[in-house]
Amino acid sequence: MRVLGIDPGLTRCGIGVVDGGIGRPLTMVEVGVVKTTPELQIEERLLLISRGIEAWIDATEPDAIAVERVFAQANVRTVMGTAQVSGLALVAACSRGIPVTLHTPSEVKAAVTGNGRADKAQVGAMVTRLLRLDETPKPADAADALALAICHIWRGAATNRIQAAVAQAAGAGR
Amino acid sequence: MRVLGIDPGLTRCGIGVVDGGIGRPLTMVEVGVVKTTPELQIEERLLLISRGIEAWIDATEPDAIAVERVFAQANVRTVMGTAQVSGLALVAACSRGIPVTLHTPSEVKAAVTGNGRADKAQVGAMVTRLLRLDETPKPADAADALALAICHIWRGAATNRIQAAVAQAAGAGR
Repeated sequence: MRVLGIDPGLTRCGIGVVDGGIGRPLTMVEVGVVKTTPELQIEERLLLISRGIEAWIDATEPDAIAVERVFAQANVRTVMGTAQVSGLALVAACSRGIPVTLHTPSEVKAAVTGNGRADKAQVGAMVTRLLRLDETPKPADAADALALAICHIWRGAATNRIQAAVAQAAGAGR
Repeated sequence: MRVLGIDPGLTRCGIGVVDGGIGRPLTMVEVGVVKTTPELQIEERLLLISRGIEAWIDATEPDAIAVERVFAQANVRTVMGTAQVSGLALVAACSRGIPVTLHTPSEVKAAVTGNGRADKAQVGAMVTRLLRLDETPKPADAADALALAICHIWRGAATNRIQAAVAQAAGAGR
């Protein structure tokens, strides 16, 4: 299965695509960042990111999409933009009938490093090892997006099947 | 000028369309609410609201769109959904080249009632009077959306011209 992970952000939105399955080797398909500058108006930034996410989905054709769950207790100034970007990611997935799942940062850290409180360096190091890369993907948002995709693959079959059934039912209802 | 106001929300997203200008009478064009139920998955709710907002814009062809600015200090559970819906509204406007402006709740209350701390009943009463309606639009989200549109018309020409220039420049750059 191919999973596209999205680490939502207004300045840097990390995107990482991984192929794999439970008990099978993982392969990185693509990794990158959709960037916007604070000089643009908020609506223009969100539109650029929305189009960027859509372009990534359409180019890599993932079976599932994993988005980092945003919490309101995070930094007040950045959390609104992050929430808005996560909403755009959810809509981009749902409008294409692709099952989408939210994972918390600690779920992702626990899946990839075995420690839900791992720091960015540990996550980056494990992503590099698991995907057999020559160097850690930069910036951290890109590595985090790959970690999200890996987390989703490993959390596995049961959750994914439920999500797929829900997405299909919703699609049939439209 | 015709303004479409959006009071973002996941359960009830208020939408109100008003024609008017500075020193001219105001006329309500249309008012309503895009609703979704909490039984649906979050991605399905956001997609339905996004499509609802787009349908309203395409049907009423506003010259400008006004969206209520969301603050992170509000209720933690609802603020994330509200932020996500406001992001969808901004993208729907920007992708159509329609200038979009955020107004804070107190700007809207001050514009419509003269008091930045007015309650919902006062806002509803003034909206009803200003638009010469027989009764106050329900639910409050619908009345708030009309208040946003009125606020935008009255805050007026200077702001709108700046926004239009920005939107045009952004559109030209795409």
